[in-house]
Amino acid sequence: MSEAKGYAAHDATSPLAPFSFERRELRTDDVAIDILYCGVCHSDLHFAHDDWGMAAYPVVPGHEIVGRVTAVGPDVTHYKEGDIVGVGCMVDSCRHCQACNDGLEQYCLEGFTMTYGSSDRHDGTLTQGGYSDKVVVSERFVLRMPEGIDLKSAAPLLCAGITTYSPLKYYGVKPGDKVGVIGMGGLGHMGVKLAKAFGAEVTIFTRSESKVAEARKQGADHVVVSTDEAQMAAVAGNFDFMLDTVPVQHDINPYLAALKHDGTHILVGLLEPIEPPIEAFNLVFKRRVIGGSLIGGIPETQEVLDFCAERGITCDVEMIDIQDINEAWKRMEKGDVRYRFVIDMASMKKAA
Amino acid sequence: MSEAKGYAAHDATSPLAPFSFERRELRTDDVAIDILYCGVCHSDLHFAHDDWGMAAYPVVPGHEIVGRVTAVGPDVTHYKEGDIVGVGCMVDSCRHCQACNDGLEQYCLEGFTMTYGSSDRHDGTLTQGGYSDKVVVSERFVLRMPEGIDLKSAAPLLCAGITTYSPLKYYGVKPGDKVGVIGMGGLGHMGVKLAKAFGAEVTIFTRSESKVAEARKQGADHVVVSTDEAQMAAVAGNFDFMLDTVPVQHDINPYLAALKHDGTHILVGLLEPIEPPIEAFNLVFKRRVIGGSLIGGIPETQEVLDFCAERGITCDVEMIDIQDINEAWKRMEKGDVRYRFVIDMASMKKAA
Ligand SMILES: [Zn+2]
Ligand SMILES: [Zn+2]
Ligand SMILES: [Zn+2]
Ligand SMILES: [Zn+2]
Repeated sequence: MSEAKGYAAHDATSPLAPFSFERRELRTDDVAIDILYCGVCHSDLHFAHDDWGMAAYPVVPGHEIVGRVTAVGPDVTHYKEGDIVGVGCMVDSCRHCQACNDGLEQYCLEGFTMTYGSSDRHDGTLTQGGYSDKVVVSERFVLRMPEGIDLKSAAPLLCAGITTYSPLKYYGVKPGDKVGVIGMGGLGHMGVKLAKAFGAEVTIFTRSESKVAEARKQGADHVVVSTDEAQMAAVAGNFDFMLDTVPVQHDINPYLAALKHDGTHILVGLLEPIEPPIEAFNLVFKRRVIGGSLIGGIPETQEVLDFCAERGITCDVEMIDIQDINEAWKRMEKGDVRYRFVIDMASMKKAA
Repeated sequence: MSEAKGYAAHDATSPLAPFSFERRELRTDDVAIDILYCGVCHSDLHFAHDDWGMAAYPVVPGHEIVGRVTAVGPDVTHYKEGDIVGVGCMVDSCRHCQACNDGLEQYCLEGFTMTYGSSDRHDGTLTQGGYSDKVVVSERFVLRMPEGIDLKSAAPLLCAGITTYSPLKYYGVKPGDKVGVIGMGGLGHMGVKLAKAFGAEVTIFTRSESKVAEARKQGADHVVVSTDEAQMAAVAGNFDFMLDTVPVQHDINPYLAALKHDGTHILVGLLEPIEPPIEAFNLVFKRRVIGGSLIGGIPETQEVLDFCAERGITCDVEMIDIQDINEAWKRMEKGDVRYRFVIDMASMKKAA
């Protein structure tokens, strides 16, 4: 065991506070990592606040982890001391079901082990995430950071990047396709960059006229103010694919109407009941579908890292010290971040 | 013009009553048809009762029409007097949009012309359906009844058959796939036969224990009583594809939970708001989709006729006289039909 320092939530309402805890001794397939950077995801906040009714405390959040390998177990073959690696939203799964065999560990039939807030499959301890100085993870769930990638701005690829990349890939978005991206947060801005990289003609949907200029700066070909009925009516039947990153309930029907026949609307930010209700005729009369997508598997997470490194795609980040995390969460709740906070974990060495 | 006799609804509440009206003179591409049989679809009743707020009166319902060609316009090339033909739910569309060019006239970008209750694109008259002795239809929207098919029991293939065939085909249902069919009415029983013909392992979901024996008789490999929570829990994560034929609001979440990851739930019977609401996590956590499908295009409607003729697949029908139509609608509303009423149009010649 080795002592780790982090920031933890101890209940649903208190601010995150400094927290010392143990990281396990290396198992034979484990990789020990000193954390350099950790992205700050909306899920961290939702989990810690128990918005989904699945919290376990104390919890050290963080699942966009980049770090340096400090030691490896005897059976580790892919990584060695000094390698720069990443860890995303998963640290384990059953490893033998069809989904795991297909590299879709996020859909593991026995349920995957979350990077934080899950019970470890072997010793039953609570997993703890990347708002900390070190982590120990089985090599199957460790990613290789590509040569030359900017590590700070690559950290969010491990959640925001793969979450938006995976559905674009799965649904075969291709050059010329008309793709709408709904929402302009951490997920949305990655969705725009990746859909553009897939060759699509990209429209950002934003609720606010004030965000139009910023949306264009993100590389969108078009911007639609979704609260403007005339603008929405003008794009009816226009889109092949809609990437919906909105994390709160919203009326999906106007977006369904904006799809062509055979169009696809994919939710990546919502876990709540879909209300107002979907009008079935919006699906039936044009053979449209609505679905969801959850992060991506480990092989595909490596793929998005390599894809982004080759194309120079990164996340727009604002670096913070770990001591500023509570303030950052407050700003994130207000949407006041362009587009992802990333913690510089060197700050953990400062006196708490 | 030629005088036609039929049965029409004159408002949302009165029974159907004998009605004389005109069928148009043949246009150059028209086929004149003496109607032999017409299936009785739930949509006929919903439309006439104005359940969808789109009724136009007087309306002669009926869109599962089989008849004999009596005359053709000068430009007609595919049909001649004496041919046995079918007419389904559509009698026209724009004929030049991408959907029409793809043989997906049901998704025509300008909207298709319904067999009854639509405004004719050329003369603006109200289209009138198959509860009548004759009809005039452009040859593009006329189907050829295959040699040797039983005409009475083939009539419902023109709506119930194509409506269930099209999504099974579009989503690539294949041998070994686990398919659930929800509902055991006219659509459901065709869904079972067709899914079996595609090689799937088919489970019928029924609300009533009393229908289990009948469901097995329909060829289902398994039957699940959907009101039995233990039975539903036992099939969680089990299905590749769910064909949902239920025409009234129902909770879709337990069926989504019964899908594997990447599973597909297709609505063919519902046009209302989806309530209770879909839980987004049922989509997101397993990459499932829910969508809809509307009848099928004209080429695919010919395909299902040929497919069923080759395999000896027919609809289970109960023949009625046109004079019995109001009683048949009442029985249909109670689900008291196995599985489709078909009107023998010879009865139209009786004194009304
Ligand atoms: Zn995340
Ligand atoms: Zn697994
Ligand atoms: Zn019908
Ligand atoms: Zn068209």
